[in-house]
Amino acid sequence: MRIPRSHPRYVSLKTRESLVAANREGVVVLEGLIAHGRGEAWDYLLGEETSAPALVAEKAAAAFLLAAKNPVISVNGNVAALATRQVARLAAAIPAKVEVNLFHRTDARVRQITRLLQNAGVKDVLGPRPNARIPGLASQRARTHRAGTYSADVVLVPLEDGDRAEALTKMGKVVISVDLNPLSRTTQAAAVPIVDELTRALTEVERFVRDLKRDRPEAARVRREYDRARNLAAVFGFLRWRLAGLVTTTKKPRPRQTKR
Amino acid sequence: MRIPRSHPRYVSLKTRESLVAANREGVVVLEGLIAHGRGEAWDYLLGEETSAPALVAEKAAAAFLLAAKNPVISVNGNVAALATRQVARLAAAIPAKVEVNLFHRTDARVRQITRLLQNAGVKDVLGPRPNARIPGLASQRARTHRAGTYSADVVLVPLEDGDRAEALTKMGKVVISVDLNPLSRTTQAAAVPIVDELTRALTEVERFVRDLKRDRPEAARVRREYDRARNLAAVFGFLRWRLAGLVTTTKKPRPRQTKR
Repeated sequence: MRIPRSHPRYVSLKTRESLVAANREGVVVLEGLIAHGRGEAWDYLLGEETSAPALVAEKAAAAFLLAAKNPVISVNGNVAALATRQVARLAAAIPAKVEVNLFHRTDARVRQITRLLQNAGVKDVLGPRPNARIPGLASQRARTHRAGTYSADVVLVPLEDGDRAEALTKMGKVVISVDLNPLSRTTQAAAVPIVDELTRALTEVERFVRDLKRDRPEAARVRREYDRARNLAAVFGFLRWRLAGLVTTTKKPRPRQTKR
Repeated sequence: MRIPRSHPRYVSLKTRESLVAANREGVVVLEGLIAHGRGEAWDYLLGEETSAPALVAEKAAAAFLLAAKNPVISVNGNVAALATRQVARLAAAIPAKVEVNLFHRTDARVRQITRLLQNAGVKDVLGPRPNARIPGLASQRARTHRAGTYSADVVLVPLEDGDRAEALTKMGKVVISVDLNPLSRTTQAAAVPIVDELTRALTEVERFVRDLKRDRPEAARVRREYDRARNLAAVFGFLRWRLAGLVTTTKKPRPRQTKR
């Protein structure tokens, strides 16, 4: 089906199309399509724009990534399908390593996503042959790279699953999540939870990285003053305000009565 | 992966599994998986229970279905994957015809879903060989049955797309939707929008059908007094109340500062 550019849901429908295509190519798993749907609903509720609280978290994320000794960006199937370009730009700006981490891990998928990232310009992809394990996770999901996530002090985990986000937090890392669900276990586990759509979030974090690189005192101030509990409360406040505005005022004709 | 019954997300994960399996069998399309994800997010927000306003809409739906001359229940791929049993019981209770209506229509899928419905005990399935068209819809999506949706006065359209819900409303039918998104075009177009999860909604409507069959004056009262605008406002009120209760009070340790 051709979607006209004028369609009010154009961006959302095109994104959906590319995920469906990425599933056919083996990059995105079926569970990834369902997960994307959940994100769509939250983003719809959020107004499909970066909220003020999300922007605050994105600035904090940039500040923590800039101060890291070994920052790592984690990439799974959905991230690869939606944002290789944004990942490449952000990794170059920080600079950070990029590691492929798949919930449904197969060697073929790791190789394919590694290739997608390289094609997008990521220099240093940690993909095949993981050589370390994250404690407390089941077999395939624990696999990681010693030089990457395993030894990272700050990890950016977009669209991460809750178990993994919790395990990384337990390892003492500063976990930065990108997840549209403000109630998810990932959001709850992260030290810096970003409640925003993936491509918007990565673009904003990159912009803040470039800004804060030139203003180290401001970066230090942001790290000092960022308050995750207050930030999440602001996210919920924003959602409640959105819902209040969305109450429909449409009046429809009453259903006609029919007699049997 | 085996999901233990004790898992806090057991029902949701099992439902997800059956949709993924139904996709592999060709019953559910990839877009249907994304749509299910959207529903999951809304249901999570609603608390995964039938709300009081949903119950009111379900009772109204039962009252209008009972008063119909030609009530029809429309079934698509996701409905077939999730609720053939509930559709069969509801269709028998009213009684109503059941028609297969697919957004991504192929003869093979129509035959497969017809078979699933028959196996679940639906006597009268309108599936293959549609012989009428819904005005204002593109080719495959317009196809319908003269004895079914085309001539129906009341149609129950669970998980329907917005264009079709609007087209059916324009034909003068009483459209009853089941859709977890209170903002969707389907919900906006329907005369009786039910904002609830599919299997819960069909079960409740069936229960009300059995009750109201024995109390026709009450059924008439419900049809007279149901107020869709007030009901939808109550749905939004309920959502705002849920969100207010969900504001997290979790205090997490501040991210440690690292120096580069």
